[in-house]
Amino acid sequence: MAMMRSVVLKAPISGLPQPQDFEIVDSEIPALKEHQFLIEHAIVSVDPGVRSRLSATGASYAPPIPPGGRIDGFVVGQVIESRNDRFAVGTWVTAGGGWASHSIGDGRGFIAPLPDNGLPRSLWLGILGIPGMTSWFGLKRVGAMREGAHVLVTSAAGVVGATAGQLARAWGATSVVGVAGGKQKCDWLVEACGFDAAIDYKATDDLSGVLAAACPKGVDLLFDNVGNAMIDRVLPLMRLGGHIVVSGQVADYNVPHDQRTGITNTAEFIAKRLTMRGMVVFDDLPQFAAAQAEMGGMIRDGRLIYREEFFDGLERLPEAFCGLFTGANFGRRLVRLGDA
Amino acid sequence: MAMMRSVVLKAPISGLPQPQDFEIVDSEIPALKEHQFLIEHAIVSVDPGVRSRLSATGASYAPPIPPGGRIDGFVVGQVIESRNDRFAVGTWVTAGGGWASHSIGDGRGFIAPLPDNGLPRSLWLGILGIPGMTSWFGLKRVGAMREGAHVLVTSAAGVVGATAGQLARAWGATSVVGVAGGKQKCDWLVEACGFDAAIDYKATDDLSGVLAAACPKGVDLLFDNVGNAMIDRVLPLMRLGGHIVVSGQVADYNVPHDQRTGITNTAEFIAKRLTMRGMVVFDDLPQFAAAQAEMGGMIRDGRLIYREEFFDGLERLPEAFCGLFTGANFGRRLVRLGDA
Repeated sequence: MAMMRSVVLKAPISGLPQPQDFEIVDSEIPALKEHQFLIEHAIVSVDPGVRSRLSATGASYAPPIPPGGRIDGFVVGQVIESRNDRFAVGTWVTAGGGWASHSIGDGRGFIAPLPDNGLPRSLWLGILGIPGMTSWFGLKRVGAMREGAHVLVTSAAGVVGATAGQLARAWGATSVVGVAGGKQKCDWLVEACGFDAAIDYKATDDLSGVLAAACPKGVDLLFDNVGNAMIDRVLPLMRLGGHIVVSGQVADYNVPHDQRTGITNTAEFIAKRLTMRGMVVFDDLPQFAAAQAEMGGMIRDGRLIYREEFFDGLERLPEAFCGLFTGANFGRRLVRLGDA
Repeated sequence: MAMMRSVVLKAPISGLPQPQDFEIVDSEIPALKEHQFLIEHAIVSVDPGVRSRLSATGASYAPPIPPGGRIDGFVVGQVIESRNDRFAVGTWVTAGGGWASHSIGDGRGFIAPLPDNGLPRSLWLGILGIPGMTSWFGLKRVGAMREGAHVLVTSAAGVVGATAGQLARAWGATSVVGVAGGKQKCDWLVEACGFDAAIDYKATDDLSGVLAAACPKGVDLLFDNVGNAMIDRVLPLMRLGGHIVVSGQVADYNVPHDQRTGITNTAEFIAKRLTMRGMVVFDDLPQFAAAQAEMGGMIRDGRLIYREEFFDGLERLPEAFCGLFTGANFGRRLVRLGDA
């Protein structure tokens, strides 16, 4: 029998996740049923949003991952065995395969053959994958992005944030400001990504003051990946009719609910007619291909740039993941398996 | 010289407003300039939203009212002197005249002659006035009210809330639940206004549990007049794609900003694709007349009911206002001047 390796959760996590919260298990690959196919994973992603499923209470949209359960992750891989005509052996796909060496698909759920657009396959886990789609549809559909807007992006050096800022610029934003941690990330946002300014939140103890100074005209569109405290800070800077995109909450995932800072500046919603909206990008799945084609063109033209950080070996998935919450990451974190 | 009386603020208020925070001043009525006209007030309203302008910091949409400044209120009155062709002597109007016996208008800002629809003039300060318009446009435009929705209204026995619940019912809501303070108000909501259920928040120490039990299918549209803590409680009950209308914040107006409860359950925004939106009903001014005509018909037919509480005499304005924050009010609070 062929074997596969998976990374599983040892026990529910509270606080910051640590590599020792996970373990590797080996298991047999079951025989394929009709319509099924076996994917050998070449690259696996680590995603901050997964953190919410690792607490005992789980996320509101999904039950907690139980002890022994495989961790969610997106993969790029190749079909190596198939009982499905649409996914022949040799086909490269992207899917929600999880932290494992292999996964079995049946063509349902999130899975797509990779179009050959001449770009690295890893991009389907980053700027052309769920994060990049989050930037695109978060701005366009959820945030009602319009020409002339003053845009503020938080966790801006992450792939979602950096892509959102660049797209906002491409779509005619009057100003694009980012918040990130550390000089290196901030320099990259301004020098490489074309942000007007980037605020190093680690370098100030008056973040509200620095935000106000960096956004003298205010903010029409806040694309937030950080959470409650950040939204609360920005609310007084919002402009009439502004939009807040609730895209992620990296600062809140590790904090027990009763210890979280709340949003208190809700009077701003009334006075300024603000709209705050949450998103799950899978709602936009039917529009992905068109967005990916357009973004692919922008990447080839050099109008859209990205960073990636590679780790090698399945056993490094926990380490790569845990670093997402300490700010150690700079670029999309991906783990290569085998000799991908 | 003709004289007028006004109620003014003595000093900025912190905490619950008290009648002694206000005082009455007499002043001369200035001579009218061209285009001006003098309104003699018959009825003046007290509005909870005004509280936010009585703190030292003011509201985010308007500066604080300074000591000696006249308090905001809507009025119904009659033009008794005019240098404006559109507002001849004898015309009845509704306007933002303030807590005073008279005001001078020039036809700009919020002012409208009263159509003669056979209904009491006081309704232009309540169900046909700014509060009723808030209910109508809050549901329709801001809350994206649709047939079949499960609707929850807070501060439901107030004119905004009771009207919103009745309109939701008329527009095909599957369920309409209200939150109010006291058995009398709750009984009225169910027996007279057609709510499916009304929760007496004063009669439980497990409001979250009672809310969940009263909304077994969840909530598509939360029409909130209370504030952060209430929104936070309801967030876990919201249904996929739900809308939250931030209409008022009566529980937060008197609480210093740094002591306010915040909204912490923002993860619900992502998982459930929620939209929260604040409103200022004056944005809908051009549509008021059509809504008022339709609502007038519903009132005459008995499909829409209302309650009013009258006080007599300008000197009772502070008392009527202060009671809004202790739950003493039951129905739209209005103060009659002279022998209106």
